[in-house]
Amino acid sequence: MKISLGAKPLALPMPTFLVACYDINLKPNAMAVAWGGVVCGQPPCLGVAINHSRHTHEGILKNKAFTVNVPKTSQSTEADYLGMFSGRDRDKLERAKFTVIKSELVNAPYLDDCPLVIECELAHNIDLGSHALFVGQILDVKANENTLTDGVLDIGKVDPLIYSDSREYYKVGSFVAKAFSVGKSLK
Amino acid sequence: MKISLGAKPLALPMPTFLVACYDINLKPNAMAVAWGGVVCGQPPCLGVAINHSRHTHEGILKNKAFTVNVPKTSQSTEADYLGMFSGRDRDKLERAKFTVIKSELVNAPYLDDCPLVIECELAHNIDLGSHALFVGQILDVKANENTLTDGVLDIGKVDPLIYSDSREYYKVGSFVAKAFSVGKSLK
Repeated sequence: MKISLGAKPLALPMPTFLVACYDINLKPNAMAVAWGGVVCGQPPCLGVAINHSRHTHEGILKNKAFTVNVPKTSQSTEADYLGMFSGRDRDKLERAKFTVIKSELVNAPYLDDCPLVIECELAHNIDLGSHALFVGQILDVKANENTLTDGVLDIGKVDPLIYSDSREYYKVGSFVAKAFSVGKSLK
Repeated sequence: MKISLGAKPLALPMPTFLVACYDINLKPNAMAVAWGGVVCGQPPCLGVAINHSRHTHEGILKNKAFTVNVPKTSQSTEADYLGMFSGRDRDKLERAKFTVIKSELVNAPYLDDCPLVIECELAHNIDLGSHALFVGQILDVKANENTLTDGVLDIGKVDPLIYSDSREYYKVGSFVAKAFSVGKSLK
């Protein structure tokens, strides 16, 4: 039997993205975002929902670029910290000891400590209400060499943080099945 | 050291959404979608990226509504099947033996066998290139009663399918940390 939970913004799984940009004073800053994902294949685009009041909102608008940095599970404390406090008041990236690198492709910094980095140029700014959906065209994806298996990104080695509606972080678990394959049995 | 993977549409983790709608002949249909996520808090909205050529694209445009059904890992065969074939040629939901229910809130069917169902009314249709981003306003979230722990959605009990860029499905693994909590230590 199904129970109604009401009109709530949730899905499962949700990602934990560390969205980094230069702020309006050109200082590197980042925040944690669970609302977003891939939104187009060609051109490849990623969307992130950012509340209009956030420091990151004005930084992305000014600099027209951001990076999405995917933390590993051992970085849950740092990721959570980036989501709880504002870069208006403090240098969060220094406090969390992230190694900040200036992207050569977009006008934004990335967090070299994260195993997966996606560099985006702002393509669309869509006002949906409380949040702007910033759609970034992906100019490059960079992964730590040790997260690849035979040249393919290995989710177990990236070990990304999953965010749940219960306000908890989880690991990725075991392999279930091959996609574009297991379903053929029903053809 | 970071390796460039090029300009690719990916993020980690990605969801496995079964996006259901009535087609242009008002027959229930669904497809698997890994590109999407929550895109706004107020009003609560979910976005799903659908290639312009897909049967689901014309169905959502005609009926102005869709549901996002989150399959559990034991439904990987059915989910994968919905992603591999088109509802133009066959009745996928009948073949995969889904129990289809007409939503009372939006003009779309939902899949009662999935533990989590999100009912959406089409709010925005954003052409981003190969894909339309359909932004749906969430009118209700319904969950199987046995997926709640103390009234809160329990990701371990929902057991949602995770999609990886390596074209594989994974389970959600172990608890890592409490969000809006573990990061306080860096304050």
